Amino acid sequence: MARRLFPGAPQPFIDLSTGINPYPYPLPPIPAGVFARLPEAEGQARLAESAARTYGAPSAAHVVPAPGTQILLALVATLVPAGKAAILAPTYSEHARAAGLAGHRVTETADIEQLRRADLAVITNPNNPDGRVIAKDRLLALAQDLKKRDGLLVLDEAFMDVCPPEASLAGEIDRGNIVVLRSFGKFFGLAGLRLGFALAAPRLAAMLNASLGPWAVSGPAIAIGERALADSAWMDATRNRLADAAQKLDRLLAEANIEVVGGTSLFRLAQVNRAAETFKRLGHAGIVVRAFSEQPTWLRFGLPNDQDWSCLRSRLETARSNPP
Amino acid sequence: MARRLFPGAPQPFIDLSTGINPYPYPLPPIPAGVFARLPEAEGQARLAESAARTYGAPSAAHVVPAPGTQILLALVATLVPAGKAAILAPTYSEHARAAGLAGHRVTETADIEQLRRADLAVITNPNNPDGRVIAKDRLLALAQDLKKRDGLLVLDEAFMDVCPPEASLAGEIDRGNIVVLRSFGKFFGLAGLRLGFALAAPRLAAMLNASLGPWAVSGPAIAIGERALADSAWMDATRNRLADAAQKLDRLLAEANIEVVGGTSLFRLAQVNRAAETFKRLGHAGIVVRAFSEQPTWLRFGLPNDQDWSCLRSRLETARSNPP
Repeated sequence: MARRLFPGAPQPFIDLSTGINPYPYPLPPIPAGVFARLPEAEGQARLAESAARTYGAPSAAHVVPAPGTQILLALVATLVPAGKAAILAPTYSEHARAAGLAGHRVTETADIEQLRRADLAVITNPNNPDGRVIAKDRLLALAQDLKKRDGLLVLDEAFMDVCPPEASLAGEIDRGNIVVLRSFGKFFGLAGLRLGFALAAPRLAAMLNASLGPWAVSGPAIAIGERALADSAWMDATRNRLADAAQKLDRLLAEANIEVVGGTSLFRLAQVNRAAETFKRLGHAGIVVRAFSEQPTWLRFGLPNDQDWSCLRSRLETARSNPP
Repeated sequence: MARRLFPGAPQPFIDLSTGINPYPYPLPPIPAGVFARLPEAEGQARLAESAARTYGAPSAAHVVPAPGTQILLALVATLVPAGKAAILAPTYSEHARAAGLAGHRVTETADIEQLRRADLAVITNPNNPDGRVIAKDRLLALAQDLKKRDGLLVLDEAFMDVCPPEASLAGEIDRGNIVVLRSFGKFFGLAGLRLGFALAAPRLAAMLNASLGPWAVSGPAIAIGERALADSAWMDATRNRLADAAQKLDRLLAEANIEVVGGTSLFRLAQVNRAAETFKRLGHAGIVVRAFSEQPTWLRFGLPNDQDWSCLRSRLETARSNPP
């Protein structure tokens, strides 16, 4: 794709277009039987235990293991009858698509107050791509209001792993009609594995588990997920490593006259005069980033691999001095 | 589970409780990047091409790759508005559950004529567990009738890989509202990988793909699936090997006075006087099979691993001579 857009660019491209940790959890050896046999219920139960502990959900009965959170978006939107969906925007565009698929009339709004009157309210927290974090008490107040009207609050915490644990609503899901979505692949750098979780009160979790049916998660995802989610030393070290890398990236971007205005440790949001033009300059220099069709001044930068830092610095320099 | 039921049995158990090929497709080395990176659309497109060719679907646009067919059951049931679902029974029980979940009134019937008046008609072909195969012209006539009334015919061809290719309806899916489900894990012996397909006219396939969203299938499943589905030499050899193994199993069961009355090369259906009693005799001897709560004379036997044949023979002898 990048090769077609920028045929003359140096290769391989430095791909900063995702928000996935480029320093993945080290893969344990996976016995062949894990691929061969139907995943056993016991393994999925242990994975749910591990996820409940790590994410701070009240119990394993609050956990819905899934083959990625993406597949959960449409399912979660069907937990309430088709009505009015309000999505705090701008944010990850798949939320609006999934809500529409479930038959909701979809509003995207920048005003959180507009979410109070929805049947389905969706907030990405921290938000993608600007990293905006909404405080827990505001979220709980919103959840209370929604609950009175049988509305549902969906919190996409796909990038919450790099925030202080107390920012998550996972521990409060019994206090309202709340579904928290957690992505495994982003923070653990294993997006190809397809693993994600919904966290919700047991009644809602049971509905989601029933929709997914048995064997929703692959044997390798269970084996790796169970182990990785219990590895708090790796998780702590990774949070530090990502924070350092994000700072380093900010410095490099500043040197290239690109101003960072938000983000999380997994991606940085830059504000530029004309994003489409900078996107092209970067592409011709061999750097792929994320542009947003409805945000003409935004570019999102993911973190580079360890071996790409010096190359990234020189390519940013090339991009800055080249004509567009 | 078996250990709890039969605490005194010899171990490890010989597990014949599934219909999964015990001689799995040899795992190719999987590069770490396949686990790390989000699966690329190009890979999923190549997988769909491979599946279309192998299963005989008209094109890749007719293919919906999914993380196992199980997750497709509930989605397929939502392709028609909630109404009357008729399932040719007895068969795999998850079809009734999935149709109910989608809001259908569910009838299970042994009479295929009853399926003509359904909104959603479901046939497992060849059937699990009796192996009954319904001829293509009858299926097409049913599909024609259903189409006139906007009904949908779902054909679960989970075990079709071991039948002559012309028995599949995959090549005829444009002739009616037909969805064919194909399982990857059973024939290829990689059930833990979670890979399956729906085959349908592009309009229906697009609806299913939209519900699943992007990145539905894991990187490892794409890498292994693409390769395995193109390996016709392995597939041919495996069909022969499974047919031989099924014959050998029938002989062993006959020696043990257990009569095989149906099945496919991936599992054998036996008829006994009291299935519950024989299930226990087998369990105490270290053999786990599948019993059916509503079929008091049926037991299903999967195929053993290569190294288990002689042990299976002696345990069957033990089971026969032991008191229940």
